[in-house]
Amino acid sequence: MNREELVRQIKSKRSFLCIGLDTDIKKIPSHLLELEDPVFEFNKQIIDATKDLCVAYKPNIAFYESMGVNGWNSLQKTLDYIPKDIFTIADAKRGDIGNTSNMYARAFFENMNFDSVTIAPYMGSDSVTPFLEFEDKWAIVLALTSNKGGLDFQKTEDKNGKQLFEQVLETSKQWGTEKNMMYVVGATRVEQLAEIRKIIPNHFLLVPGVGAQGGNVQDVAKYGMNEDCGILVNSSRGIIYASSDIDFAEKAREESEKLQHKMDILLSENGI
Amino acid sequence: MNREELVRQIKSKRSFLCIGLDTDIKKIPSHLLELEDPVFEFNKQIIDATKDLCVAYKPNIAFYESMGVNGWNSLQKTLDYIPKDIFTIADAKRGDIGNTSNMYARAFFENMNFDSVTIAPYMGSDSVTPFLEFEDKWAIVLALTSNKGGLDFQKTEDKNGKQLFEQVLETSKQWGTEKNMMYVVGATRVEQLAEIRKIIPNHFLLVPGVGAQGGNVQDVAKYGMNEDCGILVNSSRGIIYASSDIDFAEKAREESEKLQHKMDILLSENGI
Repeated sequence: MNREELVRQIKSKRSFLCIGLDTDIKKIPSHLLELEDPVFEFNKQIIDATKDLCVAYKPNIAFYESMGVNGWNSLQKTLDYIPKDIFTIADAKRGDIGNTSNMYARAFFENMNFDSVTIAPYMGSDSVTPFLEFEDKWAIVLALTSNKGGLDFQKTEDKNGKQLFEQVLETSKQWGTEKNMMYVVGATRVEQLAEIRKIIPNHFLLVPGVGAQGGNVQDVAKYGMNEDCGILVNSSRGIIYASSDIDFAEKAREESEKLQHKMDILLSENGI
Repeated sequence: MNREELVRQIKSKRSFLCIGLDTDIKKIPSHLLELEDPVFEFNKQIIDATKDLCVAYKPNIAFYESMGVNGWNSLQKTLDYIPKDIFTIADAKRGDIGNTSNMYARAFFENMNFDSVTIAPYMGSDSVTPFLEFEDKWAIVLALTSNKGGLDFQKTEDKNGKQLFEQVLETSKQWGTEKNMMYVVGATRVEQLAEIRKIIPNHFLLVPGVGAQGGNVQDVAKYGMNEDCGILVNSSRGIIYASSDIDFAEKAREESEKLQHKMDILLSENGI
């Protein structure tokens, strides 16, 4: 999916919600476990209940990889089930030397047909650029993550007072464009969003950490939104595990509606 | 596998060779393509030809992941075929927030029974520590990688002149011990090995970049070896693609023998 189409979807759905399909077989309602592919059935019902309220789905690949071949099958079926006008993110945090990153890019873009993959930047340019060679596909580079360990290295200052995540933004933005790169910035780091927007005013940001991790969508929009919206706010556990019972899809829809309603207002307030 | 057993294997085989099973279906000899699982057949013959000369095998997961479910099956069969007294490394460069890294750890340690996984440190402590909770399993953290992009961020100096990879070593060594953590240091960065040994004198280092990428084993041993040997030198393309013809396994053995012979001398010179 290209940027124009993504922006069109945001404007038409009045939403910049991304739903994280972090589907853990140990957490899904027990009545699904009798079915042949419980993980896919769970995802299917979540998608059916929320697809008019979100613009992106983001399966975290670890949850599928941990189930071996069955997990990869559930993932592929899930991806095939997602409507084509919804942006898809393989939250895989991959990255390797050039010829190997190209293998990962082919795995997610060609074999599975994801729109985007998240990438860890530690190995630098040749770990990211192979993902930029596919038309209408995106590399989403980790900048400032929402987890506790995100503070271990990402905010280390260099001799000029520049923090590592700022160096990552400044260097990596030269590898691609705002039409094939996005950045991960945790919702728990909103105090940095204004600074980040000075470095990358136009890029889309993927913002996890709303809900279970404590971030809130108003603050993210206040400091992160640009004229194309420019943010995808992800919620995973807060939506998909809103209920652990037979009404899980219904409750997932209710939580998604709450967020979408806030997003509609925020988009309007920003003239979008 | 625990550290004592690994050291015992090194001393007994007179080798610290790790062979990278970066098996690309586009590069393997054409006569294998008629078989049901060409990737596994290739690996099987490489293993048969080299298992007395090396102490570790390291499949790079991207090569298998890019083949979808078939690739994961080939990988599992390969892993099951590797003799149990040889150390296995899932070169996956994973890493995510804590509960998600735990999923990756289960995937590689429990489902597939690898001895170790390579980890990208950008997301900090909780991306690494879940891998340290499994008995006799190892986290191998990227420190200074052999690729061109390795210079983009890893050598950035902080206010005290400390480079990022040094910060990664100093901080992360506190998360585990020399019995469950190793570090990746590229053979193309030998000039840094003496400095690295000041920070982590006892840890094992996984050293890729010998052969196709230009590093050499004597320099690695000179600056990196400690009293337990403390290095695993990896060669991938230089061994497994030494011939692209029907004699590929024989040629792989010849290349492995050349390296093992050098390693035997280096071990003796260091009193091991």
